[in-house]
Formats: sequence, C-alpha cells, structure tokens
Amino acid sequence: MATDPDPLQDFCVADLNGVPSVNGYPCKPPSSAGDEFLFSSRATKGGDPMSNLNGSNVTELDVTHWPGVNTLGVSMNRVDFIPGGTNPPHIHPRATEVGLVTRGELLVGIIGSLQSGNRYYSKVLKAGETFVIPRGLMHFQFNVGKEEASMVVSFNSQNPGIVFLPLTMFGSSPPIPTPVLAKALRVDAEVVDLIKSKFTGGY
Amino acid sequence: MATDPDPLQDFCVADLNGVPSVNGYPCKPPSSAGDEFLFSSRATKGGDPMSNLNGSNVTELDVTHWPGVNTLGVSMNRVDFIPGGTNPPHIHPRATEVGLVTRGELLVGIIGSLQSGNRYYSKVLKAGETFVIPRGLMHFQFNVGKEEASMVVSFNSQNPGIVFLPLTMFGSSPPIPTPVLAKALRVDAEVVDLIKSKFTGGY
Amino acid sequence: MATDPDPLQDFCVADLNGVPSVNGYPCKPPSSAGDEFLFSSRATKGGDPMSNLNGSNVTELDVTHWPGVNTLGVSMNRVDFIPGGTNPPHIHPRATEVGLVTRGELLVGIIGSLQSGNRYYSKVLKAGETFVIPRGLMHFQFNVGKEEASMVVSFNSQNPGIVFLPLTMFGSSPPIPTPVLAKALRVDAEVVDLIKSKFTGGY
Amino acid sequence: MATDPDPLQDFCVADLNGVPSVNGYPCKPPSSAGDEFLFSSRATKGGDPMSNLNGSNVTELDVTHWPGVNTLGVSMNRVDFIPGGTNPPHIHPRATEVGLVTRGELLVGIIGSLQSGNRYYSKVLKAGETFVIPRGLMHFQFNVGKEEASMVVSFNSQNPGIVFLPLTMFGSSPPIPTPVLAKALRVDAEVVDLIKSKFTGGY
Amino acid sequence: MATDPDPLQDFCVADLNGVPSVNGYPCKPPSSAGDEFLFSSRATKGGDPMSNLNGSNVTELDVTHWPGVNTLGVSMNRVDFIPGGTNPPHIHPRATEVGLVTRGELLVGIIGSLQSGNRYYSKVLKAGETFVIPRGLMHFQFNVGKEEASMVVSFNSQNPGIVFLPLTMFGSSPPIPTPVLAKALRVDAEVVDLIKSKFTGGY
Amino acid sequence: MATDPDPLQDFCVADLNGVPSVNGYPCKPPSSAGDEFLFSSRATKGGDPMSNLNGSNVTELDVTHWPGVNTLGVSMNRVDFIPGGTNPPHIHPRATEVGLVTRGELLVGIIGSLQSGNRYYSKVLKAGETFVIPRGLMHFQFNVGKEEASMVVSFNSQNPGIVFLPLTMFGSSPPIPTPVLAKALRVDAEVVDLIKSKFTGGY
Repeated sequence: MATDPDPLQDFCVADLNGVPSVNGYPCKPPSSAGDEFLFSSRATKGGDPMSNLNGSNVTELDVTHWPGVNTLGVSMNRVDFIPGGTNPPHIHPRATEVGLVTRGELLVGIIGSLQSGNRYYSKVLKAGETFVIPRGLMHFQFNVGKEEASMVVSFNSQNPGIVFLPLTMFGSSPPIPTPVLAKALRVDAEVVDLIKSKFTGGY
Repeated sequence: MATDPDPLQDFCVADLNGVPSVNGYPCKPPSSAGDEFLFSSRATKGGDPMSNLNGSNVTELDVTHWPGVNTLGVSMNRVDFIPGGTNPPHIHPRATEVGLVTRGELLVGIIGSLQSGNRYYSKVLKAGETFVIPRGLMHFQFNVGKEEASMVVSFNSQNPGIVFLPLTMFGSSPPIPTPVLAKALRVDAEVVDLIKSKFTGGY
Repeated sequence: MATDPDPLQDFCVADLNGVPSVNGYPCKPPSSAGDEFLFSSRATKGGDPMSNLNGSNVTELDVTHWPGVNTLGVSMNRVDFIPGGTNPPHIHPRATEVGLVTRGELLVGIIGSLQSGNRYYSKVLKAGETFVIPRGLMHFQFNVGKEEASMVVSFNSQNPGIVFLPLTMFGSSPPIPTPVLAKALRVDAEVVDLIKSKFTGGY
Repeated sequence: MATDPDPLQDFCVADLNGVPSVNGYPCKPPSSAGDEFLFSSRATKGGDPMSNLNGSNVTELDVTHWPGVNTLGVSMNRVDFIPGGTNPPHIHPRATEVGLVTRGELLVGIIGSLQSGNRYYSKVLKAGETFVIPRGLMHFQFNVGKEEASMVVSFNSQNPGIVFLPLTMFGSSPPIPTPVLAKALRVDAEVVDLIKSKFTGGY
Repeated sequence: MATDPDPLQDFCVADLNGVPSVNGYPCKPPSSAGDEFLFSSRATKGGDPMSNLNGSNVTELDVTHWPGVNTLGVSMNRVDFIPGGTNPPHIHPRATEVGLVTRGELLVGIIGSLQSGNRYYSKVLKAGETFVIPRGLMHFQFNVGKEEASMVVSFNSQNPGIVFLPLTMFGSSPPIPTPVLAKALRVDAEVVDLIKSKFTGGY
Repeated sequence: MATDPDPLQDFCVADLNGVPSVNGYPCKPPSSAGDEFLFSSRATKGGDPMSNLNGSNVTELDVTHWPGVNTLGVSMNRVDFIPGGTNPPHIHPRATEVGLVTRGELLVGIIGSLQSGNRYYSKVLKAGETFVIPRGLMHFQFNVGKEEASMVVSFNSQNPGIVFLPLTMFGSSPPIPTPVLAKALRVDAEVVDLIKSKFTGGY
C-alpha cells in the first residue's frame, strides 16, 4: 500500500527545528545526526492509562518522537490500557496498521466499509497474537481482561493520522451543528447535545 | 495522491462477468468493448432522495456502473438531496474527493484529524462552487436550502470505498457490543441502544 | 493511478509567496490558512470564450488558483465554449481526467495510443453526461451545439500539465525546424510554414 | 516516477499464452521459465530503417518481446535511422525515458508543456551522449548526419505506450472530423485533408 | 515508502489454492473467508532456534501464513534466538522494516550504502526497544545475552523478500564461480572455497 | 516499480548549491536553468578502470552529475572494465536496473532471493545485448574477455543507491564485529580478519 513517497536517500534524520517541508521534515546533516537515530527506547515504558477518560494512553513513535523514521514510510505506537479501558473507534486516514498484543487481553474490533456490508470482525487477543487493520477502516481496542493490557502497532506511513470518531463527531472545534448530527443519527437534538457535552474538553 | 496502481495499458474495460482480480476486473477483449466505454449517461438523472431516511440518494459511477474506468484510478458519484436531506458523516478510506455543487445550496462540513485539532471547516455552497475532501477525513453534506440540491463528485481511485460513521458505529453486522460504545461515547447503555435501534435496517 | 506523492498531513495550504519546493508549494502555518481553503467559488463563472481563436476559455482550479489542493493529488478546471469553439487536441502528461458536461452539447474525442490501434472514440455529450480520459492520451472537445457549452473536469494530480498539440508542434519557442515537421507530416515545407504562421502569437 | 505498481516477487516471467491480467501478464511457473529470461539479445540487430516513410525502425524490448521484464517496471527500445530519418514527434503516456546515442548524430528535440512556455529544447547528440524525456512530453529524434544512426532508450514502465502525434491527429481510425482539426490548426479543410491523405496507411 | 500497489477493496483474503496472480493471490469470496482472517495466533510461539546453524528461527506471518494480509501492503515476522544465535546479514529488497525486541538482548547492526559512507550503526537493544531498517540496506541481529531472545518485526510490503548475504554469495544454486568471488573479496580461491563449503546445504 | 515520487512539474533542474530537500534538490528558476539540462555528454568517456583494485570504474549520471534528472525518477551509469575487472556483487536498494553492453564481453550474474531459491542466473553478454536486475537483488559483472569492456545502465530512480556487499560486510566504518561475521559465514575469526584486512582502505 503506497501511503508515502519513496525515500531518495538511505536516511534523512528529521531536523525538528527546521521548517516542516511538504513531504516531511528536512534532513539533519549526517555529521550531526549521531549514531542512534535508527533505534528508540521510547516504547519501553507506557504512558499512564488512568490519565484520561478512555482508560488508555498512546505512546507515539512517529517522526516527531523518533526523527530517524523521517521519509522511511513507517511509524509505531505503544498503547496501554487499564481494565475496561478503550482505544475508542477511530480511523487512520493514511495507513494500514499491524499490531501485536504484548500483555493482557484485548478485544479488537474492525468494521468493513459499506461495500463490505458494514461487517463487524472481532476477536479477543492475548499476548503474542496479531491483527491487521486495512487503511481507512474503523476499529477499536477494549481491555476485556482483569489486568492492564498493552500492544505495539506499526503503520506503513510515517504520519498515519488519527480520526477518533466520537471526538470528531461530537467534539470538533467549532462543533458540528446539532441538527446535522440529529438527522444523521436519527435521534432528537437532546441526545446529540448530551453526547456533545461529554466531549467539550477534548480527549 | 497514490491511491491506485498505475495502469499498464490505455484502457481495460471491465468484464463484469469475469472473476474479480486482485487489482480490478479483468479486461474485456478490445473487440467486444465497443465504442462508448469512455462515456456515461448515468449521471444525467439522480436517484430518488425520498427513498430513504437520510433524504439523499447516491448515483454511483464506479467500475461496476461504468466499466470503462477500470484500472484508470478515477470514479464519480452524483448525489441528490431533498431540503433537509443529508449525506451523513462518512469517510472514503482510499481516495481524496473533489466535488461540484450543480444545483441548490449545500452545507459542506469537513473535520480535520486529531493532528489538525479536530477542526471543523464548513461552508454553504451554491451551484458552481467546489470543495475538496482530503483522503480519509470525515465529512458530510446537508441541504440547507428550500429546494432540492445536487452535486457531482470525483475520486482519485476507481474504488474509494465509503464508511458511513453512524451506520458503522451503530448498525454494523453483527453489532459492536454496547459497553464498547458506551465507554467510547461516555454515555449510558440506554443512549447507545436508542441510537442502535435506529439503524437495525441499515441505510 | 499514482500521479502524485501521497500527502503526509491532512492539508498543506500553499504559501504562494514561498519558494516552490520539489513536490509542491510549502505549507502555510495553520493559523494563517483561514477557514475556507477547502472551498472555492472560482468555477461559478467561466472566462470569456470569445477572447481567443479557439473559441473556448479555461478557468483553472489548480494549486495556484486554489491553494487548498496543495499536496492532495487533485485539481479541477471549468471550460466554456462558444458554438463551434474547441478545446484543441491536447494531452495531460501527469493525470487521468474525468469530466462532466454542465450545459450545451460537446463532441468529446479521445484517440488511443499506437498499441490501441490509434482508435478514435467520440460521442456528443449533453448536460449531465460524463467522460474519462486515460492519462497521456490525446483528446479534444468541440461545441457542436447552437448554444454556449460548459464542462467541469477533475484530475488525479494537483498539477496535470497540458500539452496542446497544434501549439506544441507549430508554435513552440523557439520553433521546431521546418524540415523536421515536414518529414514527420509528409508534406512540403510550405504547408508546415503555413500552419506555423497561425501560431506565432501563441494561444 | 511511479509509473508501474511495485512487484510482489523477484521476477514474474510473462506467460504470453496466458490471458493478459489487469497489471501485466501472469507469471510462468519458475520451473518452465528457464535460465535466461533476465537477458536479451534482441537489441544486437536493428530493424530496417528503410522499410517505412519515417526512415526509422523501432526494435522493441518490452514485455511482449522480453517476457522477463514483466512486473519489473522497466523496458527498452532500440531505434535505427537512415540519414534524414526521423522518429516523429511522439509522447509516452506512462513513462519517463532516458536514451543513449550509440552511433551517428541525432538531433533530439523536446518541447515543454504550456506551463513551461512550450519551450523547445534541442541538441545534436553523438555516440555516447545521453538525453532524458520527462513523462508525457512531446519529443522527436532526427538523423542530421550523413551515416546511419542508432540509439537505445530505457523507460521506467514495462508498457510506456506511444502516441505518434501526426499519426494520431491525421491517421486515427476512424478519422477525427476535418472541421475539428481545421479549427484546431487554424487552416482550411484542404490543408487538413492533404495531411490526412498521407496517413491513410498508418505507419 | 511505496512498496506495494494500493488495494482496491477493504480486504482480499488470499485463496492459496488459486493460481498466484501478478500482484498477489486472488481473493476468496467473502462468504468463505470466515470471520477471523484479520487476526493471527501464529506469532504466539516461536520456532526452534536450535534447528539450524544460525541459532535463530524465523516464524513468518506473510500472505502464505496469514492470508488476510493479501493486498494490504504489510506483513510480520517473529524471530527467536539462542544465546550467540544470529539472523545473519541480509537485505529485504522490497520493504522497510520496523522491529520490537520482545525478550532478551539483541545487537542490531545496520550498514549504510556507499552513498552513506558504508557507516555501521549498531546498538544492543532490550525488551521494549525498537529499530527501523531502511529498505534495501544490509542488517543483522545477534543475541549477545545469556538467555534466549525474541523480536517481532513488521514490513511495509506483503512480500518483502529476503536476501541472506552469506548464503547468496557462497551458497547460490548453481554457485557463483570462485574466480568472481576471489576477485571481489580480494582473497585466494582457497578462502572462497572454504566458505562455500559451509553453505552446500543451504540454511 | 514505484521507486520515486511522481514529479509535479515538467522539469526541476537541481540547484546543487541549494540545501538538499526531502525528496530531491530544489529546482533552479527556469531562467537560470539554461537550454541543455535534458542532455549530457558525460558518458562519452569512461573513467580509468585501472585506478582501483576492482579493475572497473563507474561514471555516474545521477542528479549530482546531471542536474536535469532531478525529480524525474531516472538515472544512468557508465561502467568500464579491464580484462578480469569486476563490478563486485552489489545491490541497489531503491531501483530496478536495465543495462546494455556497449563493447567487450561481460559475464553478468544475478542471484534470486531466498524465496526464489537463491538461484544464480548468468550469461556472457556481448555488445548490444541487454539485461535486467530486479530491485534489491544481488548482481555483478565480470569482464571475461581479452579486451576492455563497457556498459551503460539505467535505473528507475534518480538515486538508486549502491550497497557493495564485500565492502559493506568487511569494510564498513566502524567494522562489524568479527564474531558476528564468523558466525554468519561459519568460519574462524582468522578468515574474517583476513578478508577485513583487504578492505581497510575502502574501494
């Protein structure tokens, strides 16, 4: 899946102080890129999954946190979950994702497009099990176990992007007009406003 | 935006009776493709926008309705709206879209990803005005006028796919478990079940 | 059809005052991009089709006229024709095109490559009808009706380019040597020079 | 320049007896592909440049003549010229070309698109000199020497296609209507018909 | 990095009994694809790293072992190592790789191209640490710890391929002539033949 | 094969004094690009093949030597060989290569990946014969004739990169630890150190 332009050099370590360019950050001169840009220790520790209402926390390994992946067409994330925590329904507009559960038990759900009959595919995965999310399809993870759970995922883009659907529908800035959502969800304005009230602070 | 493989021939008119292949339909032999496969009259008439609860109707010009676009990396749609009708919030997982309002007045809304601050961009467009939807971002149209409205859109993929978000979250088959959605939406199960009840019949 | 690199962000509104970069214009900072870059009213009015010898006028919606399409791999054009006006035989070197006739009657002609037997495909299209032009193939439109005609076309590149063939062969700067064209066209130098004389002023 | 999909295997030797597939020929089983499919002797001898009115002859090394390039995104041609012979103005819709003059003296001409001011770039090249033709731009070669000349060119597509412009404008099948060409060329119908009469037999 | 064609559908579960096509396996009909093709348990258990001379064992999750990744442009591997075991210097011709050490301590080495000065980048990584290998560059892993070690890697191609360099140079079938390797390595034929004798049985 | 992003303009002549950008050099303003950037005379003369231990010499026509190919996705090389000279086993990480022998007799060897059974394909080619090297596969040339030999090759990337395998394994900077190579090659440390000693000065 061709989600990024091809690189034109072996590496192009991002100069995060540079002005972001059209297709990624400019490259640091090799002499100042150091020896360790192809490696990262950032995923050894997860964020605090109790710090937000979702009960999950994403530790990103994209170009802003791992400058060595600049132009290489890949990036990673670690996500940690408390029991009952969720990585809410979302879509990556620019990448396919493969993931590995590294501890605990996660319900992984993926929903096909209209052309695939809105079919819901799901499975409870344990440590060592893997999943694949085709580009642009809605998916979520939910910790159905009694312990914390973690996963590490990879993308075939250095900047896959993320569209959290509840937040995008109910917590955009400025908000989508309530009549639009009421019509779309086929419910009264009160229901829409109730949900909107839950997302006034973002994630 | 590279959403389809490049063609390896001028045209490859889809043989819709053939077994669908990995990257599109097989090509008809030129001798049986006829003279008119590069043209279509299908968008001259819209579907009935009163035939469903959204108050809108999509007339598709993709490879299954216009075999001549097979392998060419493009497709089109015509959409018709009654006053108050909507093309509900949705995402095309495999294409960027450009659109032209051909009659009436449409509110077009587009919401950026988390990385773009979930910003909501919107405008009421009249006939002759155009819009662009970056690949994978959520968007909708809503007829805010007193007359019927129509638009014609183009995609840079022959099969962009569509993920209608209300239907995908609340009307998948089988359904996403209610506790997952309640957690994600931060509401009680009753609210989720209410919305789910509106989508039992699909679109 | 992969005619542009993929974007690495949701949008990258062109800073037309910036130095053009390798793969498009640099991005404006989001704070100065405004709220309306995804919309354009430029196609609501066509140019004057009587202002040139072709009897047609192109209103471009590419990145220089619609900075919001920068890096998104799409662009549009509106073309207006007087009766008997033509969009002369031309080729887009970097994009496939889909088009919609919005008023009047246009003869649309498309000629296959040598490998397709130089086959000429044509049809008179009326408002609402559509056509597709595979990347790099020669095509033209000609207003065969008694009224003005218009069309709106979309490309799967933000910069498809245009090679008008009469102008390119007979009006380049400096000119192609006459003996080269005489040999290629299999006619005397006088014929070539006659045609060249029609294009000394460009289009 | 991304003109072909990426291969998904080391090689996929074309089974020319197979039904052509969407993105190339099916692969022969390795056991019957033999040991020499990565090599070709076809370019050691040119065709007869006196066999046609152009005074040039193309020896193709594309997938139909060199099955080993199937899916690899490259192909080659050898072209031979008598003195005064020409490879008439043409366009490759699906590839950039690089070429090497292997004997003689060739005038190589390349014309930029409208966006590049229809600028004509040209040079007389001798054996060992090279040229590059950006995808989709019009170009020609003309033997300005007193001896035969030859060149070998490479494409970054396994099927670049060729649109010979005089033949395409004046010798398509069926022909483009004369009034269309007269308007486009700004000459009388007689001039168009004269040129058309030179191409009734194709190339 | 664009190493695979884009998909034209949500999923295309490989029918491994089908004839392999140009760009992947044909799709199973959705009705027979089942519910679990997006998930795999294959990486929960590693292969026996003592079963070969390298002291490492690769458990592949590519399309032949995980048909659900067909056309999605991604694949994975699990590799297990005994102490002192190595995944010998190798290159993936069609993908960039990102990896996660899941237990133990691995020396990961990556060598830049000539253009990058043949620079050797290396680090000993522990569980939770990650690395990235730009497409086509030579790299290896070596278990420098006292315990078994494991890693899980992801590729941005469904079929990245692998070129093990010692095996390719010294154990191809038929063998590369000894004088070629002696010249390339700048040693006597005896040294080449000695190394060749170690690879007569392949890996 | 999609090894470079597509161009967004006809040409973009490299400004080699500019700061190298993410996907190539910035473009010179057309007014200062001159008239000859699409042509090069650099390949008319080869380098001295006796100037190094390989007995071969590469004359590069990539973007740094031929600024006109910038962003066009192609580049070339001329290589000259003394009798017994070799272009040692190497890999281009970012391009497929097609080549033409222009004088002499060259043994061309190409070795498939593990998935292709490490099969060794080879042939002695004479002037006018051609070969193709799939992206990322190991290959070499060796002058088996009694005279000097030359070839001209083309790549489908403007910066294919080169990984010379003996140099990369035995002459990186800093060196790969000897125990790693001894394990990989299945020989004693002395053998590894002997070969290493031949590459202390690079190529």
